[in-house]
Formats: sequence, C-alpha cells, structure tokens
Amino acid sequence: MGPHPAVAATRVAVREVLRTLHPGDLVLVACSGGADSMALAAATAFEASRAGMRAGAITVDHGLQPGSTGRAVDLVGRLREFGLDPVEALGVRVGRRGGPEAAARNARYEALDLAFARHRAAAVFLGHTLDDQAETVLLGLARGSGARSLAGMPAVIGHYRRPLLNVARDTTRAACVAQNIATWDDPHNADPAFTRARVRHDALPALEKALGPGISESLARTARLFRDDADALDAWADRAAAEVTKDGGLEVAALAELPAAVRRRILRRTAVTAGSPPGDLYARHIDTVERLVTAWHGQGPINLPGGVEIRRRCGKLLFHRPSQL
Amino acid sequence: MGPHPAVAATRVAVREVLRTLHPGDLVLVACSGGADSMALAAATAFEASRAGMRAGAITVDHGLQPGSTGRAVDLVGRLREFGLDPVEALGVRVGRRGGPEAAARNARYEALDLAFARHRAAAVFLGHTLDDQAETVLLGLARGSGARSLAGMPAVIGHYRRPLLNVARDTTRAACVAQNIATWDDPHNADPAFTRARVRHDALPALEKALGPGISESLARTARLFRDDADALDAWADRAAAEVTKDGGLEVAALAELPAAVRRRILRRTAVTAGSPPGDLYARHIDTVERLVTAWHGQGPINLPGGVEIRRRCGKLLFHRPSQL
Repeated sequence: MGPHPAVAATRVAVREVLRTLHPGDLVLVACSGGADSMALAAATAFEASRAGMRAGAITVDHGLQPGSTGRAVDLVGRLREFGLDPVEALGVRVGRRGGPEAAARNARYEALDLAFARHRAAAVFLGHTLDDQAETVLLGLARGSGARSLAGMPAVIGHYRRPLLNVARDTTRAACVAQNIATWDDPHNADPAFTRARVRHDALPALEKALGPGISESLARTARLFRDDADALDAWADRAAAEVTKDGGLEVAALAELPAAVRRRILRRTAVTAGSPPGDLYARHIDTVERLVTAWHGQGPINLPGGVEIRRRCGKLLFHRPSQL
Repeated sequence: MGPHPAVAATRVAVREVLRTLHPGDLVLVACSGGADSMALAAATAFEASRAGMRAGAITVDHGLQPGSTGRAVDLVGRLREFGLDPVEALGVRVGRRGGPEAAARNARYEALDLAFARHRAAAVFLGHTLDDQAETVLLGLARGSGARSLAGMPAVIGHYRRPLLNVARDTTRAACVAQNIATWDDPHNADPAFTRARVRHDALPALEKALGPGISESLARTARLFRDDADALDAWADRAAAEVTKDGGLEVAALAELPAAVRRRILRRTAVTAGSPPGDLYARHIDTVERLVTAWHGQGPINLPGGVEIRRRCGKLLFHRPSQL
C-alpha cells in the first residue's frame, strides 16, 4: 500500500526539485512549524535520503510572540526525529523598516542566507503553497503595475526553491494529519492587521463565492504566465533600449515605432537609471513621459520622483539627474 | 460658473473621443436608461453639437422584463429632449446560447450593428465605466489564461467607442443628479444569479476592504497595461511563427530558443489553426505540447480538444487535424 495521496503529492513535488540537484548535496528546509513547511520538511527528509542527498532544517525565531523561543526549541527536536541534520533554531531581531510584514521577512531571509552559506548548502527549500501564490497575485493586482506585479513568487530564485508552489495548502494539512505530524498555526496568519491575512480570509473566499471554485488555481497559473510574459518583454526591452539609445538620449522616432509595452518599459528603466526610485514611479508618471513621444505638441520638461527631469530636444528624450542640471 | 465637476468629467471624456471623428459625423449612443449611459448621452449631445457633429441614441428592448417596452418608449422621449436625433428603441429576441448574459449581449450588439449601418453612423458610444472595466478584469482573472484575459474591454474596437472607461460609475451618477436626469437601475445588475452582479456587489467590496481603496482604479489601469503587453507579445509571436515554420511543421530547435511566452503563443495559435476550439484549449494543454520541445524523452503524440494531434518527428512538431489522419 502506497502512502496517503496527500503525502505522495508533497513527495512528488519535492522529488521534482531534488532532480535538479546532485548526490551528496545538502538541502535546508526553512520551517515555521506550520503545516506547509512541516509537510515539506517530512517529504524532503524522505526523498533526500532516497536520492543520496542530505537534508537539514532551519527555523527562525522572530522573537515577536511570547513563547516563541520555547516553540523553536521544541520544533528543532521534532525536525530531528524526521532524520533531518543539521537542524537549527536561529534567533533574529526584527526591525521596523517597510512595516511589520516586510521587516520580519527581511530578518528571516538574512538568517536563512547566512545558514545557507555556513553549511555550504546547495539549496534552501521554502514551504509556499499554491494558496500563498494566489494571495501574492492578488496583492500584486492591488499595485496595478502590470505583468511583473502579477508574476507572484518564483519557483526558483538564487539558492531558494519553492517545491510546493503547485500544491494546495489543504494538501499539506492532510499530509501532516496522515503522518501524525503536529503543526502550529501562526496567529499572525489570521490577524486582520496583516494585509495577507485579510486577503486569505476575506478577499479570496469572496472571490471564490462570486466566481466559482478554482480561483486560487487560476491565480497561481496566471502568475506563471505573467512571469513568462514579463521575462519576454523585459528581454525585448533590453535589446530595443540598446538600439534607441544614441549620444546619451533616446531617439524619439525609434521609440515611436515600438509597441507601447516595450516603449514604456524602456522609459521606465531609463528613468530608474537616471535616479527615479522604482517604488515611487507609477504608471501615470510613465504616461506623461510617453506623451513626449506619442502626443508631442511642444510641452515642457517632465519632472519625475527623485528629481529626474526629462525633456525632448532635437528628436531625442534627455534624462537628467538633479546633480547634472 | 462652469458645470458640476462630474458633468465636466463626462464631457471631457466624450470630447477626447469626438476629436478622433470629423465634422458632420453621426455618433449613436447605446443607452439603457442607467446612470452610465444617460450621463454619456447627455454629454455626447452637448459636445457633439459644439463639435459640429450629429448625435443620436439607440435603446435596445430585450423584452426580458415586464414593462420593458413602456420604459423604452419613455426613454426615447427623454433622450429626444437632450437634442439627440435620431433616437430609436429596437426590440430584440434574446436566445439562450452561452447563458443569459451572453445571449442578451449578443442580441444587443447585433441590433446596434444594424442601427450603425442603417444610419451610416461614424461610431457607436458605449457607456462602460472604470468600474465595469474593473469587474471585467476580475472576471478575466478567474479564467486564468494570461494577459489577454486581463486586458478588459478596449476603448476602441471596430466602430465602438467607450468614452467613459476612465470615469467612475459614481461620477456618472453624480452627473445625472446634477443635471436632473432620471435614471433607471436594471434589477439584473443586482441579481446574484449573474456572475457580474456577484463580482460588483460582493467580490470587489471584499477586495477593497482587504487591499484598501482604489482597487477598481488599479484593475482598470492593469487592463490597459495587459492589453499593451498582449499586443506586443502577439506581434512577436506573429513574426517568430513565420520564422520557425518550415515544410508544414514547427522547427523544435528554433522554438526552444524563444522565450516561453512567445513559444506558447505560437503553439496555441498553431493548435487553433489546426482545428482546436480556442475556448476548449487551456494552459495545461499547451503545457503538454510545450514539453515536446522543452522536456523531450521520446513521448508519443499529444491529443488536443477538437481531435488535433501533435507529434514530434525529425526535429519538427507536426499538427494534424482528424480529417488529415
């Protein structure tokens, strides 16, 4: 008799990723104690030993909740019972920059990066599921800034891998139940003070009710398609930017012949290179720059965030930083 | 003293579109009697006469609700009071194909197309607002089929124009109140049996609550960006398809070098040309075809909806229709 279908699903997903690694490699699983990462840790322990690889786990203690250190110590013991080695609990200090969610995330990834280097690991596995991906896409939709903001989380980035990105959260829960693995639900995940918790508990269920079941799968699939689109258009913009740049300016006639999607990407990256902070540069800013190309009637220079000034002169767009004025 | 800001907003939006037409041209406004299209009709009557153009209106009586014919006759009289001419109420028979929403829409556009031709009009104006656009994007998101499904409604398509696509629904309501224009709310718009009504009354408010105000504007802006992206990638796929096609097949080596976004578009359109119905062709189908290129291990032919068969042979992908087998 084979394993429970949910357990099999998590193992198959992990096996796919281990195929890209080599015998003897060490994989570290980032583990919070929640069902997602516990299912991932158990599947990785099982599959890595069969593939002749080593698997360990890291849990990060953010020190934000009473009892978190005791829970981390307990979790280390339970992860060792899976056969994982090394297993470490790393304490971090969470700053305040960018809000509570971003600050905790930054501290966590810094600790994981250090553990990766210290153990000479080949990869760090993250437990994000299909449902996390759907939430990320919805959060990106609110930014309204195009394909890249809908591209969700990548399955592979640097030394990080997300083996469960096509596995539903419910499947990881079922896998834990089937393997008799205790899990811990982070109360932050249900705290409506956090945008992601509101998306998870209010927005996605409302969308599902309005649009029918399967909305999370649609959103996760959408993410992959938009990642591909954004990659292809960025590559096109790379090539085209080189062709339209001449004598330190962008040639208006050449810009005008490009599709809007490519032209706007070139204008955006040129503005960022000139010193405009990407986070402050909205679609409406690019609109005004684009009109220097597509709706020219002698208008004056455009001022962008970061003090970047753009003017059209002699058939060229010139981008100036304040220090260059 | 100028007009009320909401009235000014609708007039500015109409004026922008009239600029693309010519003196003497006739514009027909499609009018349901709701605030959106009544505000559009009033603004068009005002601006067209100033631009030396003619403006009329068409209301379509779907005959689906008791009293609809009386309401249509009443509406014709009120539209004439705006100075619109010609004004017509056209009765249509709504079929059942594609569900109630699609059937009513098809009947409506058929009637509008005929009126456009009969009056030798230059354009038909539709009253869709920024909020309608946001709803359309959310409906497209549920399909999960990429940039084109998130591109929303175009501002220009054939002889149709949507002048209010950047104007909020609330603005059209305020414009009607300010001009003392009575409006009629179609009860279908609030009937939870209709997907769009559920999106409008449940899903969008839930998203707004989770993600903050301005979500409709974000979605509408997203639509424009995705339309641009889809246009650019379709153009690239057009060019690349010609380059990879040889002796009735697609060259695998050339396909492999293309970005996934372009390759998948070529595979999709080749399958459609071979006879696969676009509505039945999902991303997971294209996945299996793509693996003939990117994960080849001698697998057998792929069968797509519509009986299209795809096999890899001698470094080429060959698409066969059932009748060609």
